[in-house]
Amino acid sequence: MEGDPISALCTPALVVDVDIVKRNSHRMKERCQNLGIQLRPHMKTHKTLECADIMTGGSRRCIVVSTLAEACFYADHGYDDILYAYPLPFDKVERCAVLSEKLTLFQVLLDHHDALDQLRKRLLGEGKKWQVWLKLDCGNGRAGVLHSEPEALRLAQAISEADGVKLTGIYAHCGNSYNCRGVEQIQTVAQDTTTFTLQFIEKLKGLGITCKSSIGSTPSCSYPVTDMAKLSEVHPGNYTFYDVQQSVIGSCSLEDVAVRVLTRVISHCPHRNQLLVDCGWTGLSLDGAGKLPTGYAMIEGHPDLRLLSMTQEHGRVESISGKLDYDRFPLGSLLTLIPYHSCATAMMHSVYHVHSGGRLVERWTPTRGW
Amino acid sequence: MEGDPISALCTPALVVDVDIVKRNSHRMKERCQNLGIQLRPHMKTHKTLECADIMTGGSRRCIVVSTLAEACFYADHGYDDILYAYPLPFDKVERCAVLSEKLTLFQVLLDHHDALDQLRKRLLGEGKKWQVWLKLDCGNGRAGVLHSEPEALRLAQAISEADGVKLTGIYAHCGNSYNCRGVEQIQTVAQDTTTFTLQFIEKLKGLGITCKSSIGSTPSCSYPVTDMAKLSEVHPGNYTFYDVQQSVIGSCSLEDVAVRVLTRVISHCPHRNQLLVDCGWTGLSLDGAGKLPTGYAMIEGHPDLRLLSMTQEHGRVESISGKLDYDRFPLGSLLTLIPYHSCATAMMHSVYHVHSGGRLVERWTPTRGW
Repeated sequence: MEGDPISALCTPALVVDVDIVKRNSHRMKERCQNLGIQLRPHMKTHKTLECADIMTGGSRRCIVVSTLAEACFYADHGYDDILYAYPLPFDKVERCAVLSEKLTLFQVLLDHHDALDQLRKRLLGEGKKWQVWLKLDCGNGRAGVLHSEPEALRLAQAISEADGVKLTGIYAHCGNSYNCRGVEQIQTVAQDTTTFTLQFIEKLKGLGITCKSSIGSTPSCSYPVTDMAKLSEVHPGNYTFYDVQQSVIGSCSLEDVAVRVLTRVISHCPHRNQLLVDCGWTGLSLDGAGKLPTGYAMIEGHPDLRLLSMTQEHGRVESISGKLDYDRFPLGSLLTLIPYHSCATAMMHSVYHVHSGGRLVERWTPTRGW
Repeated sequence: MEGDPISALCTPALVVDVDIVKRNSHRMKERCQNLGIQLRPHMKTHKTLECADIMTGGSRRCIVVSTLAEACFYADHGYDDILYAYPLPFDKVERCAVLSEKLTLFQVLLDHHDALDQLRKRLLGEGKKWQVWLKLDCGNGRAGVLHSEPEALRLAQAISEADGVKLTGIYAHCGNSYNCRGVEQIQTVAQDTTTFTLQFIEKLKGLGITCKSSIGSTPSCSYPVTDMAKLSEVHPGNYTFYDVQQSVIGSCSLEDVAVRVLTRVISHCPHRNQLLVDCGWTGLSLDGAGKLPTGYAMIEGHPDLRLLSMTQEHGRVESISGKLDYDRFPLGSLLTLIPYHSCATAMMHSVYHVHSGGRLVERWTPTRGW
């Protein structure tokens, strides 16, 4: 298929514009260089070797992952300095220990004393220490000890004092930036998260403890605030692909979105003023329900259409207003969906069709599972 | 892992109770035998060889699929008499032709004259004819020519008269049975779909055309109406696993649901009265949003809990009323999710862990893609 136009693909198909991926990755690297901080790109959106190589500039060092399966996949391909940024799962401690002993730098994360106990029960061999990030909740409302709770400091201290364990850093995810609209709101969240994290680092210093700091989210790292220069690292991930959601938040423009789902018209339903396409939720995911006037995605070049609903393998498309002109959409014709959430859409595909200027150049195969 | 308890699995994990699968499959077979009609089980829910063997009783004949990838997968494993029940996708005509020439009986489906033209343009070799089902919309509102439209009869006639093409049957999916609550409503939809299909068959007879008839959906086939005995075939699929959705519709009881997602507690969030589990939408799918008082799934044995929201790898669980008792849910403890929609949940897993009485017996690997 190499060299063929993307329109030669059977549908539904996830296509990735490698030039946009490179541009997005380059810009994020530049932003971090300007701030003088380390970029630790997150792999969770794409989970492929090729895209990781672009994001790390080929260094194969300094990444963050959301599953242990990703960590193992990248380690198997020569990656090192991997942060498994997920509340230490007790069923996977042994697998984490093996990776810690194998790699130069494998790092875990926790937000509870009981998790620290798990590490103490399985001390590492090879004269190694567990490298541990403490997860802080700076307003995101998912994992992490609340930054303002005395418990957070106590836990950081306990990690730093435990035998066989090292407090590597303080980690905060500002996923609450996904509720923002526009740069000003994004930067308010970025500032709050940065401030709370740095204040926490200062408190630790007062206790004689020094360690790294990292915050992340694609919105906050796409429009960083100057105080982020005081952090050690940032860990965005989605920015390599971006998506409609990020454009709605204000992290990027639609021109920065690197992924599309190609789909074809498979049925005309004049009795309902609809047409069917061959992309259901297996090709797009159900993420984004109720979020866009255009339904589950944007249909490129057709702002008058919306992807109303999906079942497993069918998508119902209709005109936002007025009669559908079926002559414009004969059976077999191609429509291009811009996904609402590229992480969720990529997850539905076992191969990504990568193109440059509309011509296929390679296929990327993501890792899956946990 | 064989022989281990399912609690030994790393989570999230999709587990399948093979005894319930066999019982569900046996009951559906009996129901069809009692009606004297052919059961053509749908593979779309599980997409595995092992479950297909259970559903076909090892005959490896007479199945229906939702993607051409499934058709090829089953054909490669010795299956035949395969119906690809999807509006003929113009980009896959050649692949369909190859399968038609290779198998004894590969059948396609269409609902438009232009699709018939595609078949005429690619006549089969080996002295074979395209085996074509006409898709009828009997009130479902997805694919198909509306049963009451004169166009439907014209298209059936055109198929039956076309050189190199045979009108094999009339196919109707009563997906509108998914809006039902209780057996009475299910049977109303089953009756309507059956009546419209049989009336259409009668009209065809009046034109001297005879062919098969098939209707399907798990609800209607779980509680068939007597008139369904006049059909040639039925084509349900979800019944082998069932799910919470089917129990809400009234197709089954919760005891008939064969699948679960195992998940573990990974974080306590007392400041929000929540806990986190290691199942996000990558382990469950987002199907069922807003449908259940217990959130995205039911949590087995804990009717007081709900799975409030999910991100990629995290699920937020909270108490439906009152304070969460964290002592009952220590970090690492196992929770069992009963999925809302087993088709959507199974799609998220690249391996199913199959057990009998809670002990692992085998792993099933589904096919994916299109």
